[in-house]
Amino acid sequence: MLLLEHESKALLEKYGIKTAACTFCETEEQAIRAAKQIGFPVVMKVAGREIVHKSDVGGVILNINSEEEVKKAFQALMSIPKAEGVNVQPQVEKGIEVIVGVAENEQFGSVVMFGLGGVFVEVLKDVSFRLLPLTRRDAEEMVREVKGYKLLEGYRGMKGDVGAVVDLLLKLNEIVEKESIVEMDLNPVFVYEKGLVVADARIVVGERKRFDMEIGDIDFFFNAESVAVVGASTNPIKVGNSVLKSLMSNENLRIYPINPKANEILGLKTYPSIKSLPEVPDIAIITVPADYVVDAVREAAEIGVRGVVIISSGFKEAEVEEGKLREEELRKIVREYGIRIIGPNTFGIVSVINGLNASFTPMFSEVKKGRIALVSQSGGICHYTVHQFRDLGFSHILHLGNRCDVDFPDALRFLANDENTDVVALYIEGTENGRGIFEELKELCKRKKVVVMKSGRSSVADKASVSHTGSMAGDYRVFASAMRQAGAVVVETPTELMDSAMAMAKFEEVKGGVAVLTIQAGLGIVAADIIETSGGRLAKFGDETVRKLKSLLPPITLRENPVDMSFSGLDLHVFAEVIDTVCQDEDTGMVMFLYAVAPPSWVLPAEVISQIMGRMTKPSILVYSSTPENYAEIKEVLKDSETLIFDSVERAARVAAILSDKRNYF
Amino acid sequence: MLLLEHESKALLEKYGIKTAACTFCETEEQAIRAAKQIGFPVVMKVAGREIVHKSDVGGVILNINSEEEVKKAFQALMSIPKAEGVNVQPQVEKGIEVIVGVAENEQFGSVVMFGLGGVFVEVLKDVSFRLLPLTRRDAEEMVREVKGYKLLEGYRGMKGDVGAVVDLLLKLNEIVEKESIVEMDLNPVFVYEKGLVVADARIVVGERKRFDMEIGDIDFFFNAESVAVVGASTNPIKVGNSVLKSLMSNENLRIYPINPKANEILGLKTYPSIKSLPEVPDIAIITVPADYVVDAVREAAEIGVRGVVIISSGFKEAEVEEGKLREEELRKIVREYGIRIIGPNTFGIVSVINGLNASFTPMFSEVKKGRIALVSQSGGICHYTVHQFRDLGFSHILHLGNRCDVDFPDALRFLANDENTDVVALYIEGTENGRGIFEELKELCKRKKVVVMKSGRSSVADKASVSHTGSMAGDYRVFASAMRQAGAVVVETPTELMDSAMAMAKFEEVKGGVAVLTIQAGLGIVAADIIETSGGRLAKFGDETVRKLKSLLPPITLRENPVDMSFSGLDLHVFAEVIDTVCQDEDTGMVMFLYAVAPPSWVLPAEVISQIMGRMTKPSILVYSSTPENYAEIKEVLKDSETLIFDSVERAARVAAILSDKRNYF
Repeated sequence: MLLLEHESKALLEKYGIKTAACTFCETEEQAIRAAKQIGFPVVMKVAGREIVHKSDVGGVILNINSEEEVKKAFQALMSIPKAEGVNVQPQVEKGIEVIVGVAENEQFGSVVMFGLGGVFVEVLKDVSFRLLPLTRRDAEEMVREVKGYKLLEGYRGMKGDVGAVVDLLLKLNEIVEKESIVEMDLNPVFVYEKGLVVADARIVVGERKRFDMEIGDIDFFFNAESVAVVGASTNPIKVGNSVLKSLMSNENLRIYPINPKANEILGLKTYPSIKSLPEVPDIAIITVPADYVVDAVREAAEIGVRGVVIISSGFKEAEVEEGKLREEELRKIVREYGIRIIGPNTFGIVSVINGLNASFTPMFSEVKKGRIALVSQSGGICHYTVHQFRDLGFSHILHLGNRCDVDFPDALRFLANDENTDVVALYIEGTENGRGIFEELKELCKRKKVVVMKSGRSSVADKASVSHTGSMAGDYRVFASAMRQAGAVVVETPTELMDSAMAMAKFEEVKGGVAVLTIQAGLGIVAADIIETSGGRLAKFGDETVRKLKSLLPPITLRENPVDMSFSGLDLHVFAEVIDTVCQDEDTGMVMFLYAVAPPSWVLPAEVISQIMGRMTKPSILVYSSTPENYAEIKEVLKDSETLIFDSVERAARVAAILSDKRNYF
Repeated sequence: MLLLEHESKALLEKYGIKTAACTFCETEEQAIRAAKQIGFPVVMKVAGREIVHKSDVGGVILNINSEEEVKKAFQALMSIPKAEGVNVQPQVEKGIEVIVGVAENEQFGSVVMFGLGGVFVEVLKDVSFRLLPLTRRDAEEMVREVKGYKLLEGYRGMKGDVGAVVDLLLKLNEIVEKESIVEMDLNPVFVYEKGLVVADARIVVGERKRFDMEIGDIDFFFNAESVAVVGASTNPIKVGNSVLKSLMSNENLRIYPINPKANEILGLKTYPSIKSLPEVPDIAIITVPADYVVDAVREAAEIGVRGVVIISSGFKEAEVEEGKLREEELRKIVREYGIRIIGPNTFGIVSVINGLNASFTPMFSEVKKGRIALVSQSGGICHYTVHQFRDLGFSHILHLGNRCDVDFPDALRFLANDENTDVVALYIEGTENGRGIFEELKELCKRKKVVVMKSGRSSVADKASVSHTGSMAGDYRVFASAMRQAGAVVVETPTELMDSAMAMAKFEEVKGGVAVLTIQAGLGIVAADIIETSGGRLAKFGDETVRKLKSLLPPITLRENPVDMSFSGLDLHVFAEVIDTVCQDEDTGMVMFLYAVAPPSWVLPAEVISQIMGRMTKPSILVYSSTPENYAEIKEVLKDSETLIFDSVERAARVAAILSDKRNYF
């Protein structure tokens, strides 16, 4: 129900929020009395539950200075269709205009929006979002992250009380909850050098969206020791054959191909049905055509299989009625038997650390073991990413597919408790339950380092994603803000996703700016450019550091940050002193060392490079540019060191930018 | 000389620009007379050549409605220190506030700035720049490229006459030239639905900066058939040895090592001095220590050598007095003998196409021949770039070093006439003569495709570049705008520089948006995201195209743009029809095909991939993600085709974004 303006303001006042309190008047006399009580000049506005935008219908009259004017205004306002009365309020002093809004989001429930008035919101869409409830840090960040923040800091002789804005935002936690508010527009709010006043308010109370979550264990999928493959095939181009090949990379796994027509496939004894197996397998992989999937899953559930991975497609994603019905059937089986389903329409899961490749991609059996888990909503992105980063070191790879049962929240809870995983990389397109992801992500971020990529930044991609996932991709900015609020690092491309994950797995912590060391000024400048313009931060060296660097290096070179150690004067003792100086600086969170080989004398032995990097006591990134052979050699020498190595200054600088962004410190 | 406001406005009126014309008054009586003539209300402002910001000293009084008020205002204004009089003007109706400025830039001479008033310029620095003179297209683009342009398109019931703004900008060509204006601030200009009025103007006339250019031939460097190396060394870690190795990759070159102490080096007969050579070499490479360079160059000049490449350092870049003096000496020799100098402090030049490696980097002898020229201000970036892109196909590589003689304008003119070069890639840090680059670049862009990267986007890098190049890096945005205005594509990283050059060399022309074809929705969405958020544009298919795509593809997939051809329904005939349909669409400027290999059955034979790409009648980019071996195979098959291939969706999408940006059509 929409509250009238005076009701909305009364509600806010109850919580100690100052408003331009107004008096609701149904007669001319009341209006005159109210105006006199308030004192001229006053403002009069039309009131009516069905009037949405007062200004658009001429429903706001400013600068009313006499009884006569009150009468005229009253008549004018009451003649507006659907007017129920008139509100009289003091004409408040103009301050810096800000807008605070609360809305119910399909994905996340109550979302708060903050922005500056006028062109900032209306033309530039310069707003920030956070989910309720807010912490003080959330509120502070959301005020600071809009471009218009500069106005609050001081502009044309005006300054805004940022503390008062933060307090207002924090009060929303309680108000929205207690009053069951589903929509709130405080617009404008005038912020003064001290304090603020809500000049206009519009509140709708109603039933708030609730998010029910059922989250269960899925770790048994990744620890499976016996696997049935329903739809195992003798035909090497069929998925039912590829899955067997994938599984067979693990000699200890007990694999049961189900195929009523064959006796053996790839040397494995086959079985006519899941019921005929010699044991109840831990999990089953389903590759039969869509029509047969429901029966296969029921059969598995009946004999007590704990989970199935449904690779088959032809479900919700097919956008035909029977696809949806099939998924409904599957969910019924889940409810009835407690069996868990990954998929349908997934390429599968790979527990790299446990040697379990339960996917249709045998080449994933060669992926290197490590401590990074990848959970992806897209199979294509998963394949792309793993191809590009096969040496990264994965614990588990999970493609969620249609998420008819197992969804992101299950995956996040599993990984929070998984001792094989240090870093979690998430690729998200869109879901039905953003709040569930948010809540689980918050928990996960307390225990692991998490980096998230959400697609759908562009309008087209957003639209595309809707049709693709059969679910709302939602507003990118709300989603990204929520992920950040939960404590995750948010990135924009698959390469950033995996490069950041790699850095987060390698580095204990990064807290500070980037110190850029180079032997060629140009590379240092380019790295600094990319770091600063990608949202990162260069370390700001203290006076002592600068003084020392100037004494160590000749005047020819850049000696602040970037620091050009200039190869021509190569002296490894000087290198060492520069490195020590820079690493000791308080603001250095990370060191980047840039090195493009030129004449033959510049090709340092790999051990020397390794010594140089080993000297760094802060997380370090080496950018080494040389012939492919020379690069491969250096990479090999450094592979188990604490240095990250790149041949691309762009990739290195973007990771440095991401990790030196204060919001991403870990 | 600063003109007073009424003088400035009179000047503008002379050129048909409407102003809030004001009357300069030195007495109260004059002011009253003027006010009456104009009609109340009027505005009064203080006038004084030494008063820079009138509003800051309370020198602007609005809304003056009577004789009495004129008197009061006059007295108040005249009491301001340094007041010479008072200007009376009509109070003009407020419109959309814009700001037009002209200033003399050290690099470029007259630069025009445009922006919207209020927060847009003051808080958001939302302005655009162009060099004078402007074409109509320049003027139109500079108005449209500011974010505040939306206000002119219509906001809160107001609209602005964009045509009138463009006309105002175009008039600056004549006014600035004829009136010799060195500074102009039209702020504010009120723009109405029809027409505009300059409400305040401040003009300074004076002597405009002139740019003298002497540009000469440098092609003989790249066609050299005989080369002397002054400072040739027997020591393999010395530059004087590396240069010989580099040169010796060409068996037809006549190489003359100069070293009075050795008889032969690397099997080449040495000579004691340049004067003792059996012929006058085309060019000489100088590698001796700085102290000996001037004499060596003079000796070369005396015997008639046309050009020298000075690799030695210890000149301007050293930031010591003697370095500068040495360069002054070198310039004297240039003037006296007409000899040309590349460097000092360069690693050299490589004419890949002519097999001439006159650099200290022997590994550059293996760089692949092609039709892209690279001119770089940084040796480090040059090495980095060539290492990363050794297979790209270069015509010439030129590192300018300190540019004591040969500079960007010479290089640009050489390349404009070079028949071996189709595409020019420039890396610029900062120069003393931006106008010279601009003028030559304009000519170059008429004949070749040009892509420019300018470093110094960040404040730190800007500062760094100053100390590094001994020259102002200048404001990045002015520089980038000027390069674009000249007709070049402007990019931000070395990889973008070379990827774009590669695409421009491969594609005849690109005029339109990107059509994204994929077999996995996720990859298509990510590519669309990157293209759109990097300033590029997806093709907007016509109705006929959409209808046809919908008839060709099942409802499961994305069928507009991106187009998901979905591998699971793999049918090469459908692929072909989709490709034909998309290529025939008018708005398709380029096609991107995304393919991440998953199960073994998805590994298409290289010839099939080649057929698919060959079917495309528009410039095409393949993103192919698979095992390194599989990728290498596909790359090999496509290497001479018209398809660009990448394993990185990010790099491919950024190039697609750059080329589908309307400003970059070629």
